[in-house]
Amino acid sequence: MFELDSRLAQDTLCMGDFTLCRVLLMNDRQYPWFILVPRRAEVSELFQLDACDQQLLWQETTALAEILKDSFAADKMNVATLGNMVSQLHMHVIVRRKGDAAWPAAVWGRHLAVPYTTGEVAGLRQKLGLVLNGVCGFAEVAG
Amino acid sequence: MFELDSRLAQDTLCMGDFTLCRVLLMNDRQYPWFILVPRRAEVSELFQLDACDQQLLWQETTALAEILKDSFAADKMNVATLGNMVSQLHMHVIVRRKGDAAWPAAVWGRHLAVPYTTGEVAGLRQKLGLVLNGVCGFAEVAG
Repeated sequence: MFELDSRLAQDTLCMGDFTLCRVLLMNDRQYPWFILVPRRAEVSELFQLDACDQQLLWQETTALAEILKDSFAADKMNVATLGNMVSQLHMHVIVRRKGDAAWPAAVWGRHLAVPYTTGEVAGLRQKLGLVLNGVCGFAEVAG
Repeated sequence: MFELDSRLAQDTLCMGDFTLCRVLLMNDRQYPWFILVPRRAEVSELFQLDACDQQLLWQETTALAEILKDSFAADKMNVATLGNMVSQLHMHVIVRRKGDAAWPAAVWGRHLAVPYTTGEVAGLRQKLGLVLNGVCGFAEVAG
């Protein structure tokens, strides 16, 4: 039975579900920073997913990265699964722009998060609903 | 025509080739830190690879992560493609252990690299030749 890790739940906003993964938005307006979490119990490494789920995770990760690069005008997409602090398997998909708060360094451990306003979150939900419509079974989920 | 980025060439040791990727070892004995580089020209984002190469990259990444986790006694594998400084597409596959130099932070930008000795590199080559034998078309390449 899948249950979202409490630290991920605290730091993010739920945007929806792909076929396999929950789509989270890190509540940090310094970067459009998304996190995909496979809705499977007790998995912390990529290779612990079965072959079918591995393929879904890669497809959802790659599709999300491609769409975000265009729709958020990224200079570079950063894609990573680390999990040193939160063991539940989760994939970061982060829009990076030259001149963002951490550029060109990696984002982890650089700056305290700056939360979005309610209006900004509403705008992002609307935008994602449009650009992810029909992608990898995307469905909005009440956050 | 594939040519390895000069910064990657400078910072790493060539260990071999998978079917798609060159297998590099970061010359930093603080972590067993590998880098996979698809042998394709002018690709910087995952989704710029064709569908067949994308699948190979994910297979080689996942297989390498799984083998390293066991053979190097990792507590956690870190897998990431960032590319903010080196635009040539490359995938980090890093063995992390509780108590390593950066734990639990991400490794990028934390510590200056500490190069391996010649003997350590020879030992790692031998070990990789054994554990990667028959995996994703692995073949040793003179570094």
